Parts: sequence; structure tokens; C-alpha cells
Amino acid sequence: MEREQALKMVKIQLTEHRYQHTLGVMETAISLARKYGVDEKKAELAAIFHDYAKFRPKDEMKEIIVSQGMPKDLLEYNSELWHAPVGAYLAEAEAEISDKEVLDAIRFHTSGRRGMTKLEKVIYLADYIEPGRHFPGVEEVRNLAKINLEEALIKAVQNTIMFLMKRNQAIYPETFHTYNDLILNKED
Amino acid sequence: MEREQALKMVKIQLTEHRYQHTLGVMETAISLARKYGVDEKKAELAAIFHDYAKFRPKDEMKEIIVSQGMPKDLLEYNSELWHAPVGAYLAEAEAEISDKEVLDAIRFHTSGRRGMTKLEKVIYLADYIEPGRHFPGVEEVRNLAKINLEEALIKAVQNTIMFLMKRNQAIYPETFHTYNDLILNKED
Repeated sequence: MEREQALKMVKIQLTEHRYQHTLGVMETAISLARKYGVDEKKAELAAIFHDYAKFRPKDEMKEIIVSQGMPKDLLEYNSELWHAPVGAYLAEAEAEISDKEVLDAIRFHTSGRRGMTKLEKVIYLADYIEPGRHFPGVEEVRNLAKINLEEALIKAVQNTIMFLMKRNQAIYPETFHTYNDLILNKED
Repeated sequence: MEREQALKMVKIQLTEHRYQHTLGVMETAISLARKYGVDEKKAELAAIFHDYAKFRPKDEMKEIIVSQGMPKDLLEYNSELWHAPVGAYLAEAEAEISDKEVLDAIRFHTSGRRGMTKLEKVIYLADYIEPGRHFPGVEEVRNLAKINLEEALIKAVQNTIMFLMKRNQAIYPETFHTYNDLILNKED
């Protein structure tokens, strides 16, 4: 799918603020993809669709999680996680995106997972550091992303876990596993 | 087993520094047990033996973990975790402690686990806040322990996870599960 068509499909699903965020993720993802040897067109497409399901009603997302046999434990954790796997499903069902790598990059952009592909890492990170993001620690991750994809990702996942812990929120187990997986497989 | 006999058995296994720590854990555990309605004798015994295996050679601990069918993933994580389950085993094998609750409090005093008993919580916390402990955040946990066992434990587990993350160390999965379990079962 071409960029303009993809953006048009996504724009009507999002608020203006979220659409601007999506444009930021797109630009950042393309730039990271170029830097780290990832297919730029796949990064562009995954970035454009990463938040496609963000504003679907919770009931609809819940119904899709159950009917599509997605991990049921998602429902026990923060509903902010749901739009990622649901977005992957809808990107395939409604936008006819069939590239599994692109769909997985959408699917795991919030939780992460063990054994993330480089494309998945690029999308996770682009979502975290795109220019519209302003929160404590983001600048450090931005700087790391210029040097080392893994190190930047580790810092982003750490920040996410710490952010949730400081608010006494439960943390989706796969996010913990992502952290350990990155640490245990880090090249020293 | 009486206190004097138990302390005598443990003392020869430990450095003087670690023995003083054990005395601190014992006093703290008894006081927490009294406050939160836990059997004081069990708390005393578990506290005295909690670090019983601390200075066993790594090879011996590894051999016990494998031969006793303990979770093998322990070996993939920090060896600081090993003395707890190995200590439970040796407390039974060498000191003939047969009380399962006491043994479990020794077994899970470092990792925690899902569904911790009150006795396990008391030992975990006493180990964290005994008067000989001095590190950032300990005073906050000490103060919480005077008011609420759960809140103090959550803070201690959070601090432990953050401490390890700041050092880019892997975190034993059961410790993550302990955090989520405490958060998801917290009474508001």
C-alpha cells in the first residue's frame, strides 16, 4: 500500500493529535530503519498503522481479543495494551495488509516480546521517541537511538516498567520477559 | 528447635557480618510477626536460618538445585538467588526443620513468589529492613512496615526490581510475578 492511501485510511480512525503522533512515528521509523538496515517500506507501513485501533471501543477490542484467540491474559492488564494486537488484526482484516513482519511490528509495539525482530524494535522505539513525545527520560533514549538500537530499546523498556511501578500498576508479563530477553541476549 | 541451638548451628556457617545481619532479621521478623499476627516462633526460626546456605560453594548449590529438582531457570539468573532454595533444603536435611511454612519462608525470601504467605512476607521484609541495612529507600520501607505489611512489601519488591534494572541485570521472572501478584491482589 502506498503512503498516501495508508495515511488516508488511518487518519479517519484517529484524533488529530494522535494522527500527528503517527506522522512522527512514521518519520522516526523510516530514519531508524535506514540507520539499522531494516526495510524502510515495512517500517513506514507498520508505523502508519501502529495505532490504527487506538480509538476503537473497549468492547469491540475485547470481543476481537476473545474471538481471535489472542492471549486472554491481556484482558487482566491495562487496556492500553489492547490496541496493539487488535490493530494488527484490523490492519489485516480492513486494510488487507498481509505482511506478517509488518503485522507483528504493530502487534508487539506496546508490550514488546521475547525475540523481537529488528523491525519490531524500530517501531517500538519510534513510538517512544518520535519528536512529539515529551516526558522524563525520552531525550536519553533519543540519544541512545542514534548510537545503538538495543541499548535504546533496553532503556525505553526499563523506563516503561519503572513508570508503571511508580504508579503501582501491574505490568504485562511479556513486557518483563522482553526486558530479560534483551538483557540476556545483549552483546557486551 | 530452641533459639540458642539454632543460632549456634547458623553462626558457624556465616561470616560475623552476616551473623549480625541474621540477628537483625530475627529481631525484626519477631516484631513484624507480633504486629501482623504471624506465629512468632516460626518467624524466629525462619529468620535464623534464612541465610544458612549463603556461603556454600556455588558448585555445591548448583548440584543441589539440579539433584533436588528445583526450578532449573534459577541457574540462568543471578547466583545470589540460589542460597534461598538451597538454604531451605539444607535446613531440612542438616537441621531437621520439617515445618513446611518455615522452609518456604526460607525458600522464597529472595525471589518472593505468587501467593506469598504472611510468614513469607514477614521474612522477606525483615531481611530488607533489619537495622543493619543502609541503602537508599530502606527508611521508606521501614516506615511503611509500621503501618501496612503489603504496602511495605510492594515497595521493597519495586526497589529490588529498580535496583537490578538500573544495573542492567536480568530479573528472575518469579520476582516480576511477585510484584504483579501483590499489585493485583492489593486491597484498596
